[in-house]
Amino acid sequence: MEKHFKNIDWKDNRNLTMLTDFYEFTMMNGFFNSEFRDTIGYFDMFFRKVPENGGFAVMAGLEQLIKYVQSIHFDEEDIDYLRKKTNFNEEFLTYLKELKFTGDIWAIPEGTPIFPGVPLVTVRAPIMEAQLLETMILLTVNHQSLIATKANRIVRVAEGRPVFEFGSRRAQGYDGAIYGARAAYIGGCAGTACTVAEEMFQLPAMGTMAHSWIMFFETEYDAFKTWAETYPDDCYLLVDTYNVLKSGIPNAIRVFDEVLKPMGKRPKGIRIDSGDITYLTKECRKMLDKAGYEDCKITVSNSLDEYIIKDVISQGAVIDSFGVGERLITSKSEAVFGGVYKLAAIEKDGEIIPKIKLSENEAKTTNPGFKVPWRLFDKETGNAIADVLTLNNENIDDDKEYVIFDEIYTYKKKKINNFVAKKLQEPIFKSGECVYKCPSLEEIKNYCKDQINTLWPELLRFENPHKYYVDLSKDLWKLKFQLIERNSN
Amino acid sequence: MEKHFKNIDWKDNRNLTMLTDFYEFTMMNGFFNSEFRDTIGYFDMFFRKVPENGGFAVMAGLEQLIKYVQSIHFDEEDIDYLRKKTNFNEEFLTYLKELKFTGDIWAIPEGTPIFPGVPLVTVRAPIMEAQLLETMILLTVNHQSLIATKANRIVRVAEGRPVFEFGSRRAQGYDGAIYGARAAYIGGCAGTACTVAEEMFQLPAMGTMAHSWIMFFETEYDAFKTWAETYPDDCYLLVDTYNVLKSGIPNAIRVFDEVLKPMGKRPKGIRIDSGDITYLTKECRKMLDKAGYEDCKITVSNSLDEYIIKDVISQGAVIDSFGVGERLITSKSEAVFGGVYKLAAIEKDGEIIPKIKLSENEAKTTNPGFKVPWRLFDKETGNAIADVLTLNNENIDDDKEYVIFDEIYTYKKKKINNFVAKKLQEPIFKSGECVYKCPSLEEIKNYCKDQINTLWPELLRFENPHKYYVDLSKDLWKLKFQLIERNSN
Repeated sequence: MEKHFKNIDWKDNRNLTMLTDFYEFTMMNGFFNSEFRDTIGYFDMFFRKVPENGGFAVMAGLEQLIKYVQSIHFDEEDIDYLRKKTNFNEEFLTYLKELKFTGDIWAIPEGTPIFPGVPLVTVRAPIMEAQLLETMILLTVNHQSLIATKANRIVRVAEGRPVFEFGSRRAQGYDGAIYGARAAYIGGCAGTACTVAEEMFQLPAMGTMAHSWIMFFETEYDAFKTWAETYPDDCYLLVDTYNVLKSGIPNAIRVFDEVLKPMGKRPKGIRIDSGDITYLTKECRKMLDKAGYEDCKITVSNSLDEYIIKDVISQGAVIDSFGVGERLITSKSEAVFGGVYKLAAIEKDGEIIPKIKLSENEAKTTNPGFKVPWRLFDKETGNAIADVLTLNNENIDDDKEYVIFDEIYTYKKKKINNFVAKKLQEPIFKSGECVYKCPSLEEIKNYCKDQINTLWPELLRFENPHKYYVDLSKDLWKLKFQLIERNSN
Repeated sequence: MEKHFKNIDWKDNRNLTMLTDFYEFTMMNGFFNSEFRDTIGYFDMFFRKVPENGGFAVMAGLEQLIKYVQSIHFDEEDIDYLRKKTNFNEEFLTYLKELKFTGDIWAIPEGTPIFPGVPLVTVRAPIMEAQLLETMILLTVNHQSLIATKANRIVRVAEGRPVFEFGSRRAQGYDGAIYGARAAYIGGCAGTACTVAEEMFQLPAMGTMAHSWIMFFETEYDAFKTWAETYPDDCYLLVDTYNVLKSGIPNAIRVFDEVLKPMGKRPKGIRIDSGDITYLTKECRKMLDKAGYEDCKITVSNSLDEYIIKDVISQGAVIDSFGVGERLITSKSEAVFGGVYKLAAIEKDGEIIPKIKLSENEAKTTNPGFKVPWRLFDKETGNAIADVLTLNNENIDDDKEYVIFDEIYTYKKKKINNFVAKKLQEPIFKSGECVYKCPSLEEIKNYCKDQINTLWPELLRFENPHKYYVDLSKDLWKLKFQLIERNSN
């Protein structure tokens, strides 16, 4: 862990405090110059819809969020910029110069399956600090959760075949590539092509050759031969530069025979990056088997995603592993994770005053108050039954029967017995101090897999998955509908 | 310019040399240990398809690419990592330790409208160096061109109304937000919400309030009043927290009357972030006008893109400016710009040997040789007629008639007279030295607008735009089809 953080800092020691929407500053200045300067605010970060109508998403980005919060500070140049920009007064600028985060943060650990409406991150802090954090909390968790969720979809559909993340060149910016590779690993990818991601996060990076290697040589055979001589222990050949079946595979077999066999070495595999995957992999397999290379793996990598992979597997394509690029690293089929950050309460004279945002779109009405999200697990199967949001001072006693109900169709009830209730969030910051020890990326990845195993299979479907219960406790429900009533008048 | 670069370095001095696909290293090591160590390679970066079937794309990212190339070097830690990672020999690692870019680069300036098949960046360098650059050239130009292109679509459809980039919170990583804001400005956006983008690139950042500001106060009226008192000269109010027409606008007007009017100030505007934009903006306009605030602007900002903006404008929505978020900063409706980097030639004993990559998908067959892209402009109208790729030793004499022809249907010809031929690429690096002076972002943005004005209006259509000619010179065509012939046998 120490080494881990050190590595990240070494490669990326940017101060991202100024990566924030400008309205955070206008609001902060507004609070600063009002009587409410020291008021405590409670904010929830949550999302409303699982990408691609999936059954669940995967939480990611917490480690980077922690690093950001720890490093919040304004440089002299930032203050100069703000001074020139707008007529913020010097008192406010001095406040900024000395600003550090002093509040509390709770969050759901990375790798956890997450559902709409559940607070992923809860912030309790002086209103100005809580406001400043908004952009970076959303940006960090939205991005990595998007990619972890997408990667997990692809990994699940690959049915145990390793999936490698190959998308750096088409990522949306450098961090898109680097932190995208990290998130893809959390979601279940076996590795990445992104070298610096291994340096920073110790996830395996790999790669062999591009078409340019083949084109560089006089003939494909020459290219393969030179490669096999350079990497006899790790010989992977890209076979689609000219023609897979007429040229690529025959040349590969010839080089396996002529170069590797005399050295007593076996080929590792071949890769196909274009053409009809189902047909070509079947034919390649036959040709390789016939030549005595049954152990030579077949990797494919041409604009793949979960839809194409599902399709070619169902058609009998013979594939050992997948390289997935642009459609994973950008989550192309749904490129946005729509997390929001909403004020849930303020503290006045030690009392928590809940806040609500109404909307004509009922689903956009927020849940008020300082809340705690719980997950209820079936004691026998270990399966997750429902998430329940309670107020902070409530407890869920799993020794007793617990009744969950739909917040709109309240007659829809479900009695739950023989269950275990766990709080979903962990304390991350306490009075500005980090109290959370980030697990290793390997631990997060394994935790993700284990937690997804607690979900009913009906949630894992791609088409019309079961809708998981996310319900409110009776007290929270009462509070919410009281506030709706009061605000509508 | 000096200040500009200094600013960028100050906020982002990462060494991104290791942000490269691992196969670049395995190939470099392969070349290093072969007899071809010093061979010169020529690579083209180009794209094959305009996003969303548009008529053209917008080039962006060159300034960041230059900065990357200038800063290429391996730290001791990188070498240690590579040493542990694979059995690269020490001679190769020593070579890396001393590596600097020594080659030549040509590129199309930022802001230029670009078309499929035209080399955006051409690299001539020792094969190992040229290979190392691949990932970062693609990543940088793909990302920024994607966002510049998307922004330009949105700006064009807004018909002169300012469009502001508001997407940081949903961007794909920190660079997605920062460099995305830069690219959006090139594409024509009037500004951004991303504060650090202004610090780094001097593009205007702006912002007012979130819903949280309104919710924080006892009443919407209190929130508006405090805001107007804090910002009497710049009073923009967000009116959709509870109910736009019943609460937001009446409270806004009351505050304009009670707070601003006695101070002799006028309100700047109101913003609507939810609900039926067409209906609400029409009603708001009427209410504001009736109250004597005809000069109060209306901004809207709810999950907008070019499709929605076109729709609401055609329905008569009354809007003065747009805030566009997630759908711009991720180019949601097509989140990938598919630039590729292909070997076009090598040099052997001073002779250029062209290279080609075949494909069963004809459109994926590459154009061989060391090429120069030209744009032919009509002398009278100034309009762009066609792009032509020639071999490096060819000239296009615009004093004479020039015939362009389709590379497949060669009988489709067009005689061009009375034209001006301009080379599209500028020299960027010469023997490793940067020879290009980056224009300011403002200059790039204006250049982009001017250059788009040289395109026929038929290219600007969103549905089935005219297909712009990108043709090969006769010599290049001959070379290409000779190589196809030779390689197919």
